[in-house]
Amino acid sequence: MENSAVNFALVGATGAVGSEVIKTLEKRNFPIRQLHCFSSSRSSGKEILFRGESLRVQPLSETAFKEIDIAIFSAGSQVSKEWIPKALKEGTKVVDNSSAFRRQANVPLIIPEINSHALQNHALAACPNCSTTIMLMAVGPLHKRFKIDRIVAATYQAASGAGLQAMKELEEETLACLENRPYTRTVLPNPYAFNLFTHNSPLHETGYVDEEIKMLEETRKILEDEAIWVNATCVRVPVLRAHSEALNITFSQPVSVEEVYQVLHQAPGLKILEDRSQNRFPMPVDASFQDAVFCGRIRKDLSFPNTIDLWIVGDQLLKGAALNAVQIAELFLESL
Amino acid sequence: MENSAVNFALVGATGAVGSEVIKTLEKRNFPIRQLHCFSSSRSSGKEILFRGESLRVQPLSETAFKEIDIAIFSAGSQVSKEWIPKALKEGTKVVDNSSAFRRQANVPLIIPEINSHALQNHALAACPNCSTTIMLMAVGPLHKRFKIDRIVAATYQAASGAGLQAMKELEEETLACLENRPYTRTVLPNPYAFNLFTHNSPLHETGYVDEEIKMLEETRKILEDEAIWVNATCVRVPVLRAHSEALNITFSQPVSVEEVYQVLHQAPGLKILEDRSQNRFPMPVDASFQDAVFCGRIRKDLSFPNTIDLWIVGDQLLKGAALNAVQIAELFLESL
Repeated sequence: MENSAVNFALVGATGAVGSEVIKTLEKRNFPIRQLHCFSSSRSSGKEILFRGESLRVQPLSETAFKEIDIAIFSAGSQVSKEWIPKALKEGTKVVDNSSAFRRQANVPLIIPEINSHALQNHALAACPNCSTTIMLMAVGPLHKRFKIDRIVAATYQAASGAGLQAMKELEEETLACLENRPYTRTVLPNPYAFNLFTHNSPLHETGYVDEEIKMLEETRKILEDEAIWVNATCVRVPVLRAHSEALNITFSQPVSVEEVYQVLHQAPGLKILEDRSQNRFPMPVDASFQDAVFCGRIRKDLSFPNTIDLWIVGDQLLKGAALNAVQIAELFLESL
Repeated sequence: MENSAVNFALVGATGAVGSEVIKTLEKRNFPIRQLHCFSSSRSSGKEILFRGESLRVQPLSETAFKEIDIAIFSAGSQVSKEWIPKALKEGTKVVDNSSAFRRQANVPLIIPEINSHALQNHALAACPNCSTTIMLMAVGPLHKRFKIDRIVAATYQAASGAGLQAMKELEEETLACLENRPYTRTVLPNPYAFNLFTHNSPLHETGYVDEEIKMLEETRKILEDEAIWVNATCVRVPVLRAHSEALNITFSQPVSVEEVYQVLHQAPGLKILEDRSQNRFPMPVDASFQDAVFCGRIRKDLSFPNTIDLWIVGDQLLKGAALNAVQIAELFLESL
């Protein structure tokens, strides 16, 4: 093991996703010889604990990626755009958690359970948007088996998607609200205590926000099918770290609820959580801090042919980001 | 006015909806000669303030409805089933906020802006389920003008739908969570602080909860169209008193987004709230304590012919319950 261990870089080590990457690397016993933590200059100098050792977070520099085998970037699009080309030049394999390269045709978007084959011969892979990843953990296997024509999706997205500061703001604003104190928001654009709002990504002329368009475009790219449709409504709800999604899925052929159960039972990384006698289906508290994505409420849509409904919940920071990134790094490891 | 004033009874005067009925009667200057407040024996004896006068809440009795012209029932199905027949025998016109009579063919389900004609020659009317009422404030006018085939709906429902105690539980459990204290729930079946869950109404064999079936059946009854379909996913979110709904609406003919705007601009009781430059659309805090229902995010669904998406938010306690009930009482008043 020690012989095959790699030099690993984590860019954005102090963020919500970065902290989860550290824990996930430890938990999965990723064979790391040396871990280099980088961050924005604001956070550099901080100490990070990894396998009981304290590591100092460094600012990025021209020599940062020398002799780095694999790097995960979780520091936002601007940092990725500037520094990933430099890492690639040093021969580093890169997993990008930002949206910087997701739309580039020559950069694969990888969910290891769904399309690991697409990584072949690439040195850079992007993690999909968290809403897409969580949806495709069920939709990917179903599409492969039955072919899906169209999905109508409504999301219930957690604060974590907007970062650690947004999670903190949700807690602080809620406490202020309960104590009847005024509160000044600095992260999110809208009241969040006991409130919800349209996902705060840029609005396109079509009336869709960027998050909704990502769910369509990334699904097509990952499933390698330009014919599949996703019509999404993305909403931020006052939940801390797990996204939920209501999916209405129309297949191109008749599919029974039993066949859907069969496929989902065997889908890697996915757990069916249903206790119909208790009206008990997946909730954000079930999925939070869990690697698995949970689904349930699988039922026939009586209003349209070949259509089923399902409900899916996943930890936004784990399968939606950190875990998926580490799983891609594991695929790179195999190819080294 | 004084001559035409009526004797009015409110059953369930101390509940979440009952309190809003009192305020709505005051605000709309409902011509009441005498208001009689009734409640479960648990709450009887309490004092209620109405137009500056303190009224004692009485327990229901065999003579309760003698000389009562109009009554609103907001005390749950059991009370409605037992006492409404007695009120009707006394000649009282009754508005029922419970689900007790909603499915009876000879009892009209009324949303005054949508189907006031259906009240004619009836002494008992039921208020629809709050999710249905809020949805139909936009869907009713659209169906009338263009004919709708099918709606895929995902709801984001507030605590108020489960009553005052559920609202209190949401606040208390959230505070306990923020202060890292244990909390014992007594009202709702699932954790609610920063969490969400499938609507806690009984689950049918088809996999749909009762709330979802109500949205279909009540829509058909109110719009007098057994061909319209509603496929709903109903979810309780940690919001206090306004329901939100993501609606994907398929018409039986081509309809432009502009035509939808035209109809919704003229729809009574409905306000379009959209500032696309600010990505600003209706939120629960906008609709809370407001009579109007708010809609926005009107956009063409590119994935299917004749289909648009919209987002609608309404105060569950007002248009979803108390306001709608008082509006029906106003229709009864005209017919006295």
